[in-house]
Amino acid sequence: MHLRIALLAGDGIGPEVIQEAVNVLDAVGEVGGHTFEYMPLLIGGAGIDAHGTPLPNETLQKALTCDAALLGAVGDNKFNKLAPSERPEAGLLKIRAELGGFANLRPAIAYKALANNSPLRHEITEGADIMFVRELLGGLYFGEPRLWDKQLRRAHNTMVYTQDEVERVARIAFDIAAKRPKKKLTSVDKANVLECSQMWRFVVDQVANEYPNVTVEHQLVDSMAIHLMTRPRDFDVVLTENLFGDILSDESGVITGSLGMLPSATVGGKVNLYEPIHGSAPDIAGQGKANPIGTILTAAMMLRISGGLETEAKGIEDAVVQVLEAGYRTPDILSRNVDGQHAVDTQLMGRLLVDLV
Amino acid sequence: MHLRIALLAGDGIGPEVIQEAVNVLDAVGEVGGHTFEYMPLLIGGAGIDAHGTPLPNETLQKALTCDAALLGAVGDNKFNKLAPSERPEAGLLKIRAELGGFANLRPAIAYKALANNSPLRHEITEGADIMFVRELLGGLYFGEPRLWDKQLRRAHNTMVYTQDEVERVARIAFDIAAKRPKKKLTSVDKANVLECSQMWRFVVDQVANEYPNVTVEHQLVDSMAIHLMTRPRDFDVVLTENLFGDILSDESGVITGSLGMLPSATVGGKVNLYEPIHGSAPDIAGQGKANPIGTILTAAMMLRISGGLETEAKGIEDAVVQVLEAGYRTPDILSRNVDGQHAVDTQLMGRLLVDLV
Ligand SMILES: CC(C)[C@H](C(=O)O)[C@@H](O)C(=O)O
Ligand SMILES: CC(C)[C@H](C(=O)O)[C@@H](O)C(=O)O
Repeated sequence: MHLRIALLAGDGIGPEVIQEAVNVLDAVGEVGGHTFEYMPLLIGGAGIDAHGTPLPNETLQKALTCDAALLGAVGDNKFNKLAPSERPEAGLLKIRAELGGFANLRPAIAYKALANNSPLRHEITEGADIMFVRELLGGLYFGEPRLWDKQLRRAHNTMVYTQDEVERVARIAFDIAAKRPKKKLTSVDKANVLECSQMWRFVVDQVANEYPNVTVEHQLVDSMAIHLMTRPRDFDVVLTENLFGDILSDESGVITGSLGMLPSATVGGKVNLYEPIHGSAPDIAGQGKANPIGTILTAAMMLRISGGLETEAKGIEDAVVQVLEAGYRTPDILSRNVDGQHAVDTQLMGRLLVDLV
Repeated sequence: MHLRIALLAGDGIGPEVIQEAVNVLDAVGEVGGHTFEYMPLLIGGAGIDAHGTPLPNETLQKALTCDAALLGAVGDNKFNKLAPSERPEAGLLKIRAELGGFANLRPAIAYKALANNSPLRHEITEGADIMFVRELLGGLYFGEPRLWDKQLRRAHNTMVYTQDEVERVARIAFDIAAKRPKKKLTSVDKANVLECSQMWRFVVDQVANEYPNVTVEHQLVDSMAIHLMTRPRDFDVVLTENLFGDILSDESGVITGSLGMLPSATVGGKVNLYEPIHGSAPDIAGQGKANPIGTILTAAMMLRISGGLETEAKGIEDAVVQVLEAGYRTPDILSRNVDGQHAVDTQLMGRLLVDLV
């Protein structure tokens, strides 16, 4: 099979983790006779530096012609003074909107080999395997009106959803839940305060009627922030609106032990968008300290979802488990006082995975 | 000294935990010659049941004449079908607004005796002592317009702040930070996406200029959800807008180990409002299973802040530590496989504390 991939390396550690993912993809392609064609495109701070905009028109137009888009990370402290609409992150939000994917899938998994890396006790995390389905194109991120009125010394943002927007993302979450062993869906909202959430809960209950085999529960976002830490194993698929998903999926990164391990896939639009959960980490950029596993697992999700290459995707995921069990660790997952660990840099971690796939 | 206290027991476990707090207050009063006068008032589901409204007018009018208000909890599943504006929680939000306190202080402390109760490892939580300052009258909770338009099949809420609203809560947070040993303030926002947050950050930086001795940092809400779990000891005073504070302070409950332990105080308005963090827990109401410590520590905050009784407040807090160290545990803080624990019910826990203050 052949995949044309928009390569949006972005800022900070973006380019170096993307490079390792490309190496792994190439290795997979060589073994299986698949060809991956990459189209490197500028986004984020890199777009601002080269063209004065975080999403150059060329990037968007070319990405729209691709089969999938693989993104590293965007953001740099040097742009902190810019308004939200001009920052690197605006490029990310715009490409999310234009590619159209509204369901952001974020697995949070407890790896046995990393049991010591989580601040949570082993007996709490053991066996945890959660799939977040975060709505990605609605809510406060995109809601209008939005403004910081410097004359009036007042700012506002709008949380807004239509029932159709809730329905389509709920349906994706239920489809996923229906295929998983536990068949459980937890929908998160703040229905005791927000009208948006009340509607969200109503629509989720409606969609639930179509999935009699899936168990549904509703949790308030504040309680859920606790439950994810005290009993992560009780959750299976977790459905959230945009901002709640941003917060809770990051929080759940502590189940795995490092943000650097976490992949994501955004589906449902014109071109699926694949991005690791971690940020651009400008403080460690270019030093070989970044963990490429999050991006490599993101590439695996791309092979599975956009390429239909389940075996190859599983192969990468198994290779990650093997490398971790053999003790290889980038700095973010190196634990003190644990024997049998081998410190490696970004490139060596990538090479180890290339050798195994 | 004399305090007139509006007693808003509310729903579920509210009445039983309030009763224990009253018993402790009376004991403190007797020892020190202080008199506490209680005015029991209906709120939440109790208000709906008796008068068809979650905040009966009499409750509000009388509470406004008191020196302080002590609230148990509101909410019951039987009202889940009502619109947010008619639910028990609406009574809570309305009394918060009318009493006018905008700074909700929520300590999250790691008790040595409860080290095994947290899902977090002991070495992570040891010594953690965070004071959240949550803005309580702004943001999505109160923002207009807000509507679920069933015709248009669309819902929206408004996140809104004025610079003055940010400034006044920031000033309270800085005042608190300036008096604590670490003198550090962490302000939480989502400034890479929201205009509200961008303004928030700007105002916090302005206020910071008045407090040269306080170290300030800004964290994004998603990253903060991680940091609070991986390095809680690095935080001192944490300043947030309303919803972020709701989520993060609940999440930080896992540092202590049980929501049932956590107090709060809301200051800055006409009448200070004191309420534990936990909810009404209707599933365990009336069974003696509720932990009264959160409410009793809330009463301690009331003595300190509204009564100026620092010694008495500290006395209650020390008594709580003693009772925990002696091994007494309500069900929520009873851990398996730990020796020397004595299971107690709500009433016995209250009595033990009465005996110590
Ligand atoms: C960089 C930022 C705009 C983004 C978000 O909030 O969606 C990030 O935190 C994420 O979760 O992908
Ligand atoms: C009951 C609810 C309205 C309330 C809130 O969200 O403020 C509660 O969660 C809290 O934190 O006090």
